[in-house]
Amino acid sequence: MIYVTRREVFSAAHRLYNPKFSEEENEKIFGKCSNPNWHGHNYTLEVVVAGDIDPETGYVIDLKLLKEIIIENIIRKVDHKNLNTETDFMKGIIPTAENIAVSVWKELVDKIPKGKLHAVKIYETENNFFEYKGE
Amino acid sequence: MIYVTRREVFSAAHRLYNPKFSEEENEKIFGKCSNPNWHGHNYTLEVVVAGDIDPETGYVIDLKLLKEIIIENIIRKVDHKNLNTETDFMKGIIPTAENIAVSVWKELVDKIPKGKLHAVKIYETENNFFEYKGE
Amino acid sequence: MIYVTRREVFSAAHRLYNPKFSEEENEKIFGKCSNPNWHGHNYTLEVVVAGDIDPETGYVIDLKLLKEIIIENIIRKVDHKNLNTETDFMKGIIPTAENIAVSVWKELVDKIPKGKLHAVKIYETENNFFEYKGE
Amino acid sequence: MIYVTRREVFSAAHRLYNPKFSEEENEKIFGKCSNPNWHGHNYTLEVVVAGDIDPETGYVIDLKLLKEIIIENIIRKVDHKNLNTETDFMKGIIPTAENIAVSVWKELVDKIPKGKLHAVKIYETENNFFEYKGE
Amino acid sequence: MIYVTRREVFSAAHRLYNPKFSEEENEKIFGKCSNPNWHGHNYTLEVVVAGDIDPETGYVIDLKLLKEIIIENIIRKVDHKNLNTETDFMKGIIPTAENIAVSVWKELVDKIPKGKLHAVKIYETENNFFEYKGE
Amino acid sequence: MIYVTRREVFSAAHRLYNPKFSEEENEKIFGKCSNPNWHGHNYTLEVVVAGDIDPETGYVIDLKLLKEIIIENIIRKVDHKNLNTETDFMKGIIPTAENIAVSVWKELVDKIPKGKLHAVKIYETENNFFEYKGE
Repeated sequence: MIYVTRREVFSAAHRLYNPKFSEEENEKIFGKCSNPNWHGHNYTLEVVVAGDIDPETGYVIDLKLLKEIIIENIIRKVDHKNLNTETDFMKGIIPTAENIAVSVWKELVDKIPKGKLHAVKIYETENNFFEYKGE
Repeated sequence: MIYVTRREVFSAAHRLYNPKFSEEENEKIFGKCSNPNWHGHNYTLEVVVAGDIDPETGYVIDLKLLKEIIIENIIRKVDHKNLNTETDFMKGIIPTAENIAVSVWKELVDKIPKGKLHAVKIYETENNFFEYKGE
Repeated sequence: MIYVTRREVFSAAHRLYNPKFSEEENEKIFGKCSNPNWHGHNYTLEVVVAGDIDPETGYVIDLKLLKEIIIENIIRKVDHKNLNTETDFMKGIIPTAENIAVSVWKELVDKIPKGKLHAVKIYETENNFFEYKGE
Repeated sequence: MIYVTRREVFSAAHRLYNPKFSEEENEKIFGKCSNPNWHGHNYTLEVVVAGDIDPETGYVIDLKLLKEIIIENIIRKVDHKNLNTETDFMKGIIPTAENIAVSVWKELVDKIPKGKLHAVKIYETENNFFEYKGE
Repeated sequence: MIYVTRREVFSAAHRLYNPKFSEEENEKIFGKCSNPNWHGHNYTLEVVVAGDIDPETGYVIDLKLLKEIIIENIIRKVDHKNLNTETDFMKGIIPTAENIAVSVWKELVDKIPKGKLHAVKIYETENNFFEYKGE
Repeated sequence: MIYVTRREVFSAAHRLYNPKFSEEENEKIFGKCSNPNWHGHNYTLEVVVAGDIDPETGYVIDLKLLKEIIIENIIRKVDHKNLNTETDFMKGIIPTAENIAVSVWKELVDKIPKGKLHAVKIYETENNFFEYKGE
């Protein structure tokens, strides 16, 4: 069993906002992250696939193929987008990095043709990062 | 003469948009960077001050002081903000990283108490960066 | 279950020294790391908390709160300090990065208000790093 | 139980090529990675050893010793070498990063004098990395 | 005047070899870098263009365009290639990073449609880097 | 003219302290950096040499040689040392990174056998760095 990782980056706008709460409550819970005029990040996404090495290729999965799957299903929908209003798989979900990681997992888990999705990791800043393993 | 650099980071939303042009023209010129729903970045800002070493302190300028000047005059106005609509010193300016660098220079050039502002460098992504030296 | 990480940095002096041994023995075991005149490092500390996402906030734990807990309990006591003589929670402990990781774990494990402490990771240099998971 | 990591780097040439297949088939499977005139990488190797802290030293294993073991058994045989034709422990193995990780594991697993080999991680580029834990 | 930088990466094989010298002399001058079986690197290339900001766009030069110019003229010819035998613009040139920087400069200097080429920087490893400014 | 850079790292202890001032005054000027019990850093040192490319080698200066010069003259004297009390070329000098950069310049400027010393750069932390060019 080998764990192979593909790293991609994307830039997006978001705000942290729960529609159940008032603007004041959102501001109290999320602070500057709830700015109604938006802010944004360069996100780093790491997708980890676990599997056995195919003896014919030496690969678990061709990372060029994994890259295409990530770009088609994720990057195309988040890069230079507003995560609150434009990304279909984030609709109705507060776009914290925790929820982005879970949502990316759900989008990818059935689309990995070889091996199994093992982890999705999101770096929101150089100091804050987030990992989901489907547990 | 020593060049001393202080690095700070901030996260902001923006879109590239020139109000003289139609939405279609903006989309043609700026592509996905002109998305009207915004996108954002983690920006890295480097501020370089050049000067002689004070023999009493071994400093050109105390970097704790330089940090405070950058936070008070720049970071406070851009971090978790919308650069198009919320940052006073970017009003009426297309918020490309080139223009951010020049605008930061203008904000800081008269506020450096020791040495002289030498350069302002902005990293917009890990692949695109921008430097202004007041020339 | 999500794993959320907060990264902080600190700069400290230390020497590797076991008082049970002579200076010569310490020098033989620890080499230049036992220099009696001290040396130091920029340490990077990563604190990983595991937990479920709160549906009201999208957070496992607010990382601003985790940051405050780390600064109050750890950074304040190690940054610009001598780990052998000044840090209360390292008293009587050889300040290897292994022992720093375990000591930070012990300081934090009961102070995480949401989720559970999952790992403490210390980077002593760009080539040497250390992780403790309470096992 | 602590996980200690030593990081080393090496630069090598390779091509992805399975001698069971024709050049055309290799080109189809591996694309530009199968270029018969070779290409190369700066590889980063991380070796993780897990074990208990020795109370006399505060170490799981002296990382200077681990470094020597890695250099003697691995780096000396791969750095500035051709992985397909010159590295004894890669003979007859397609030199994908997956297979390099497994091969490094096999070379090191019986040579760790304190603690146990826990993981071998290879970064082939800044976007593609690979981990093997002997499972 | 603003300095804008685009960063690209490529992976290539090479050896340092001067055909005027014998294999023994090459081995003496270049050491392991002259290995006749090749080795390789992940190179980082930074291309810096200097110019004035166009007030209509806020750009010196659209970095998407600069990226295309670099990929068409450089990356396509060096990525996953052998720099000694396959790269047309390195024919007859010892492929040290110094010479790569000068050769990239010569390829690009007349192809920058806005602003002027200011510098070409090559990182061969994390410890060795090289800059040419056309002087 | 090419600018070639060699990067080395070292770990040292220091405190900022001017013997002309009282402990209180030092504490006021330098804050936590003046802690009498020392603190330390992982310093990154970059040494830049400028010169013409030797057509026989493709080098300005063999970076293996430059590395040896830096290690013999600088690293050996600062790595795992106390910069205030143990480094001969820092005697009587407040060990700010500014002064370290100037002192390293003075040590190296006459010892570069090919090309000319162009710059010495010191990174004290990831946020604070310092460059001296002999001006």
